[in-house]
Amino acid sequence: MKFKVKFLPDNKEIEVEKGKSILAAAISAGLHINSSCGGDGVCGRCKVILKKGEVNTQPTGRISAEERKQGYYLACLTTVESDLVVEVPVESKVDLEKVNDEDEFASRLKGIYAEPEEVEEIDIIASRELFSHSPLATKIYLELPQPDLDDKISDLERINRAIREVKDIPIMQMGLSNVRNLGKLLRSSDWKVTVTLGKRNDTIEIVLIEPSDTSERNFGFAFDIGTTTISAQLINLNTKKVLGTKATFNKQATFGSDIITRIIFAQEKDGLERLHHAVIDGMNSMIEELVHENQVDLNDVTCCLCAGNTTMIHLLLKVDPSFIRREPYVPTANFVPVIRASEAGIKINPRGLLACVPGVSGYVGGDITAGILASGISETEDLSILIDIGTNGEIVLGNKDWMISCAASAGPAFEGSGVVCGMRATKGAIQRFTINPKDLKVSYSTIGATPPVGICGSGYIDIVSELLKTNIIDKNGKINTNLRDSRIRQGEFGREFVLVDKKDTGHKQDIVITEMDLDNLKRAKAAIFSATSSMLKHLKLSFDDVKKIYIAGGFGTYLDIEKAVSIGLLPDLKREKFSFIGNSSLSGARAILLSIDAFGKADEIAKKTTYFELSVEPGYMDEYVAALFFPHTDTERFPSQVK
Amino acid sequence: MKFKVKFLPDNKEIEVEKGKSILAAAISAGLHINSSCGGDGVCGRCKVILKKGEVNTQPTGRISAEERKQGYYLACLTTVESDLVVEVPVESKVDLEKVNDEDEFASRLKGIYAEPEEVEEIDIIASRELFSHSPLATKIYLELPQPDLDDKISDLERINRAIREVKDIPIMQMGLSNVRNLGKLLRSSDWKVTVTLGKRNDTIEIVLIEPSDTSERNFGFAFDIGTTTISAQLINLNTKKVLGTKATFNKQATFGSDIITRIIFAQEKDGLERLHHAVIDGMNSMIEELVHENQVDLNDVTCCLCAGNTTMIHLLLKVDPSFIRREPYVPTANFVPVIRASEAGIKINPRGLLACVPGVSGYVGGDITAGILASGISETEDLSILIDIGTNGEIVLGNKDWMISCAASAGPAFEGSGVVCGMRATKGAIQRFTINPKDLKVSYSTIGATPPVGICGSGYIDIVSELLKTNIIDKNGKINTNLRDSRIRQGEFGREFVLVDKKDTGHKQDIVITEMDLDNLKRAKAAIFSATSSMLKHLKLSFDDVKKIYIAGGFGTYLDIEKAVSIGLLPDLKREKFSFIGNSSLSGARAILLSIDAFGKADEIAKKTTYFELSVEPGYMDEYVAALFFPHTDTERFPSQVK
Repeated sequence: MKFKVKFLPDNKEIEVEKGKSILAAAISAGLHINSSCGGDGVCGRCKVILKKGEVNTQPTGRISAEERKQGYYLACLTTVESDLVVEVPVESKVDLEKVNDEDEFASRLKGIYAEPEEVEEIDIIASRELFSHSPLATKIYLELPQPDLDDKISDLERINRAIREVKDIPIMQMGLSNVRNLGKLLRSSDWKVTVTLGKRNDTIEIVLIEPSDTSERNFGFAFDIGTTTISAQLINLNTKKVLGTKATFNKQATFGSDIITRIIFAQEKDGLERLHHAVIDGMNSMIEELVHENQVDLNDVTCCLCAGNTTMIHLLLKVDPSFIRREPYVPTANFVPVIRASEAGIKINPRGLLACVPGVSGYVGGDITAGILASGISETEDLSILIDIGTNGEIVLGNKDWMISCAASAGPAFEGSGVVCGMRATKGAIQRFTINPKDLKVSYSTIGATPPVGICGSGYIDIVSELLKTNIIDKNGKINTNLRDSRIRQGEFGREFVLVDKKDTGHKQDIVITEMDLDNLKRAKAAIFSATSSMLKHLKLSFDDVKKIYIAGGFGTYLDIEKAVSIGLLPDLKREKFSFIGNSSLSGARAILLSIDAFGKADEIAKKTTYFELSVEPGYMDEYVAALFFPHTDTERFPSQVK
Repeated sequence: MKFKVKFLPDNKEIEVEKGKSILAAAISAGLHINSSCGGDGVCGRCKVILKKGEVNTQPTGRISAEERKQGYYLACLTTVESDLVVEVPVESKVDLEKVNDEDEFASRLKGIYAEPEEVEEIDIIASRELFSHSPLATKIYLELPQPDLDDKISDLERINRAIREVKDIPIMQMGLSNVRNLGKLLRSSDWKVTVTLGKRNDTIEIVLIEPSDTSERNFGFAFDIGTTTISAQLINLNTKKVLGTKATFNKQATFGSDIITRIIFAQEKDGLERLHHAVIDGMNSMIEELVHENQVDLNDVTCCLCAGNTTMIHLLLKVDPSFIRREPYVPTANFVPVIRASEAGIKINPRGLLACVPGVSGYVGGDITAGILASGISETEDLSILIDIGTNGEIVLGNKDWMISCAASAGPAFEGSGVVCGMRATKGAIQRFTINPKDLKVSYSTIGATPPVGICGSGYIDIVSELLKTNIIDKNGKINTNLRDSRIRQGEFGREFVLVDKKDTGHKQDIVITEMDLDNLKRAKAAIFSATSSMLKHLKLSFDDVKKIYIAGGFGTYLDIEKAVSIGLLPDLKREKFSFIGNSSLSGARAILLSIDAFGKADEIAKKTTYFELSVEPGYMDEYVAALFFPHTDTERFPSQVK
């Protein structure tokens, strides 16, 4: 039996089988509802309001008594038993609007707190001119001598001979489709053609042969495929100029907010297919918009280069990622063959290439390899640290001679998940927050300067730091009950502090931080700090030996270092040791797109970098427990924070 | 307006637009009617008998007055103007029956007149053991170490590492489809897999990864793709054993009997597509039958290797061949990239490879390269000649240091086309013929020992030789009118000699040889002889310098040397200098399939062999004209024939 389900406020209607979950119905209707746990009823993010109709549901602690009265249900635990009308409240909607408001976007990529000099280091590779300008795909214009009775070699040999006259490429590949029309093409173009050569794994392929001289028009895309955000850059491969940058949310979030829930979802029927399509749809929309805005012909886009964590790359290529989460955590491929972009469903020139930055392991992917390349750690004698704070927190320690990396399960708290009012860094998210120590009055700013809807990661760091400074919470993250303030109250999920009254918010609900949230944030920062310190300890080094700390990630660019140190997320070192390098994964991908030498370097980095398995490191748990304080149990490690 | 056309005796019916030719209708109905000229009304081979209905036709000399009375029309010149019933007489049908009658087949491949020792030389390559046993595709069984926390490299790297432990292959390619299921495959097969490595152009590709040990089952096909006949051999790539051989007619014959008419047909709407399908259909049927008969799983067929003239290879790959027939006669590719067989529509393992033997030029193709390899010319210091007599007659002259080749436009007379009662070497064709000098009575044998339907090439050589010997014709090929014999008469097409009375034939029509036929045969043999002598003359050599003459081709295996010399097709040298090497194109293809060294050698041969353009050679026309006698104007060149 089938029933109609209408979703408000979008007015989307879909017919589904009786007994199907409301979450499944929403996905079928093309609606993107938050869901971090992959539909297990755990994360409590897929709340909907039933307006009309019969449902079956399961008991859950994720819906408060108050909410229950208002008709709230978890979409994943609630099944359709009649025609329904369901409202998707604003906090449950995945905001798929592109982050392309000019100012906001610029700030996201560059880091609003970063000093200009530091931001400039994002282009550290270009300025260092370490790598030759030799893009993944190169165009060469050829004026071939016409065949005559004294020069009768075949068309294909003629092309090869002409290429070898200008480039030393003993081994060249070529596909059948190029051969098929070669005869007509050469003659109709009067033997003047442009050949696109692409690096295809360890050899060079004749990717394209086009009539006339198109060598001036050669473009590529660099992608950073994050668990939460996908960033794209359109690049003129001849001039190295970045023509435009865009970021969009990874639509896979509908199926789970972190890597593990997505890997689990991939095991379900059509799960892998849907995750695959979610990521390529996002990439294709950005490609379309960027070529349109820059008046680039899609046929002149000859290659793209993707950096991403190992799971994201598996899903991009529709490769089963399931073994990444099973001991011994082995991915199918860290070094992925270069393929035709169309094989993965990416819409550039149908014969254009798609390459992925090689990764180190199942939990340290090509985004980190690209980040290492961009940071320059692998080229200096100075001991350096790279911290990439995202849904996972990856840390690299080393210099040009050796590198060691690990992945800390920071959890999604800094990405706005697993915290009651958390949200991603999108419109309406509180990103800065201060509390006046005198009257405890708050002031804040939101992304897009709209009424606040929730709190993103950088907002939480500010909030925790300010709550500590004003003694509203103690070092353990507990709310000070001695303080007589009406904003401290007992909520559905335990003790909480009201940050913004519902009358000031964008969705008429109080924005609060709970002790449970504080606990999650404490664990997240402890995970990153203790992972870093454990690696140092393992190598009998200390933070003092470290000359430079690079902070990377979309998140990292929002980070107020002072406040991040004050809560113990970052070590208490001289502030000049810190550098923001922004989205270093994207910078690295761009460098590799522009230079096959850089591609070789990335291969070398991925092979050279050791993966450090935290879970089997004896001292790690002690380090972690010791870090479960704001900023740390050992105050001597945070001298600047001692009052 | 549409009309129904029914074809007898097959009772096939098709509905076609008014005005469409009967030939086009027959092709649409899936009937294969002879047509050498591509539907130009020139060859006169597509005769049909109108039984019922209205047609429009054009005047043609190809239909005799007698035939006109009986309702004969040329299918290509006659259009459908009402519902029709049309009979396709037996002589107009392309006999697509496979040549797989055991005895007949053995005789075709080995040469019925050949001495056993000479036949054995077909396997000259295998016995010489010149090339390592290294098939185009090799299977390796691997028992991989399972990953653990100390050995965490990805699945793909694990495979590569294991391969490199047994083979020195620094550069390996791999496609996305193999990566996609690698994780599951390795684990479900308990890390025991068989990897198929294939030579993909200049690198090695991981073609397949299969569970468990299938390394014992690795098969390939060698193909000779001739203008008239396609031959196939199924080969066990591990043991080098030939499991079975088949030959079938090239269905492209429906669209024209020689290369030029097919190239012209390829320019028509869907022409290339149809020629392409005609050849791959034939190949696929033989593949199917051979794997079925030998109980080989199609999935264990990992590669095939094709030798063919340049046009056939273009059509196989659906590459436009039109530039081969336009000055300066440049093909699109002489060195064709190795592709996946499925890309060309060949049905073996979907990921199996297809390679083509490289060719010398537009008119000296990979079949000749393979023939040179098989003959061993390229490895001896002795000056040798290879003559491949087919629709084209290709001649190679040289030794291990140099080789020169040319293509003589012999025309299709020796293949049974362009001669009134000519037919291909199939059931009912007169293949041997003698005339008793005393009473001029004839005796003959036909292929399949059935009543004669026509005459194939070897039959024509016998007939001309016998007519000369008995003075029924003179050295100019004119019928001796002084001879009082009722079999000499004036026919529709000039003077003719009745070879077999209609009461003894398979289709109740006299089998005759006309003076026009004799003229065509004289031109054909003159073309081959003069091409050979011109090449020698050009290099200031003579037939006496030649140590060895290899005769190749499906036709060649039927050839009676004594008679071929007597008509001046072959030079009058010591008979021990001649060797039959059978289908040397197929032998060469097999050698290349079994050894990548032989593939390298074929590349070298194709590059080293010079193409000699007869049409611009000053002395050629004189040589040709001098050869327009049986056996030759210069009788000193044929001492054994001087009576």
